[in-house]
Amino acid sequence: MSTTDPATATVAVARYVGSGGASAEDAVVVEEPLEIRVSGDTIAVTMRTPGHERDLALGFLFAEGLVQAADDVASVAFCGRPGDESLRNTLEVTPRAGGWLERAPRDPARRGTVTTAACGVCGRVQIDDLLERLPVLAPSDAVPIGVVTGAVRALRGEQTLFAQTGGCHGAGLFRFDGAHVATREDVGRHNAVDKLVGAMLAAGAVPLASHILVVSGRASFEIVQKAACAGVPVVACVSAPSSLAVTLAERAGVTLVGFVRGDRCNVYTHASRITD
Amino acid sequence: MSTTDPATATVAVARYVGSGGASAEDAVVVEEPLEIRVSGDTIAVTMRTPGHERDLALGFLFAEGLVQAADDVASVAFCGRPGDESLRNTLEVTPRAGGWLERAPRDPARRGTVTTAACGVCGRVQIDDLLERLPVLAPSDAVPIGVVTGAVRALRGEQTLFAQTGGCHGAGLFRFDGAHVATREDVGRHNAVDKLVGAMLAAGAVPLASHILVVSGRASFEIVQKAACAGVPVVACVSAPSSLAVTLAERAGVTLVGFVRGDRCNVYTHASRITD
Repeated sequence: MSTTDPATATVAVARYVGSGGASAEDAVVVEEPLEIRVSGDTIAVTMRTPGHERDLALGFLFAEGLVQAADDVASVAFCGRPGDESLRNTLEVTPRAGGWLERAPRDPARRGTVTTAACGVCGRVQIDDLLERLPVLAPSDAVPIGVVTGAVRALRGEQTLFAQTGGCHGAGLFRFDGAHVATREDVGRHNAVDKLVGAMLAAGAVPLASHILVVSGRASFEIVQKAACAGVPVVACVSAPSSLAVTLAERAGVTLVGFVRGDRCNVYTHASRITD
Repeated sequence: MSTTDPATATVAVARYVGSGGASAEDAVVVEEPLEIRVSGDTIAVTMRTPGHERDLALGFLFAEGLVQAADDVASVAFCGRPGDESLRNTLEVTPRAGGWLERAPRDPARRGTVTTAACGVCGRVQIDDLLERLPVLAPSDAVPIGVVTGAVRALRGEQTLFAQTGGCHGAGLFRFDGAHVATREDVGRHNAVDKLVGAMLAAGAVPLASHILVVSGRASFEIVQKAACAGVPVVACVSAPSSLAVTLAERAGVTLVGFVRGDRCNVYTHASRITD
């Protein structure tokens, strides 16, 4: 396996068309663990594609409620052993003195995201807790449905890593006038969104009123949760939403659009934000 | 949102074709948390689709090395509060006295799977640890490439929940003679595999020599890891593998086939197990 771009690796394959595998090369997306530490405490380990790690950490901590603004963070630095691969897989986040990240209660036993962290009680309580912490977006400007379906089409053209590897998710941000703002890609769907939101947070652009978050695959509850935290009023996905994504979008005041294929789509929640 | 089959929910949508959203109904796949406890200790909380929870718990604990055979477990029972939704989202696993599950060291702070659990050191150590614990399969019988691509085609016909919702992954098990053994579906790719392996473990059919595991989407490292643990020599996926999936398959002696589209595919590792 050889690598130049840290996000892709070239591997030797036997390529079959019917029979008789021929030697060939294939580009695969890189999947590596990233440990995110705050003041030396491990907050999460996520399997991610290398690149945009500072944004990933910032976006993740923001969605977890540990960061409220970019200046809650004094510095973000890789901190592994020199010459070792750990150097690019361990990220140390240092809180700014007096900022929210320094003061926010952190559960040191908490590993991973809400997805996998146990509340110690039961699933029912966990969902209630999630719903309780969810921001609720106010009704806002509307966006023509054609802009939403156009943004989903446009995302594909921005997914350069997907074009090379076919193995990663894309998350793109578009304005209500259809303008493309940014796209991030990652082997993990939630990481792509964290990288995107982290970049916007660093640019001082959050909350993202009058923006559309487009995700390349399905919409799970965590995509909706991250969008709501970032103030994004419209989430559109190429494929299906889950039941919990619909429930959360309904509660959070997020317009959830799914199965966007050409000019067809389903609007699952808050359709009042969509115009013809 | 209304539900009869616990794996699907019907939601009201505005369906757009171009413009003018029309009221319609859509079936979405249910996503709910499941807490898996062993002797009262929370081992994992996973977002899953209801159904086959006992198999899911068994398969998960097997892949984590906490269960070696089905009879390590005395009983698996839902244990929430009566009349409460928690009843179907909390699963208590009771070890058989003297069995491995009772004796195996459990880290009580460990939440979630290897994917998200932190080792407390760094990512590099985590991958090394993963590779060290990985079983290595010996060379075995070969399978014609047409059986592998045929199995991938056949999986689609078995994905009844996907046909309804478009929102879940499928994992299917096929024999080297092409016979379909079983298919499981879930909103989480790893859960679908755990449900499948758990069912086979309960049936006394593990290790699964001369079997093919087919997954509907991409192959991440955890799919390969779970296949290796279950002794499945061939893993085939419709879409792309990640770099770590290729690395793990190479080390574990697993034949990894990806991008299976019609009679085309790439064999990434251990192609000696594939014949024309």
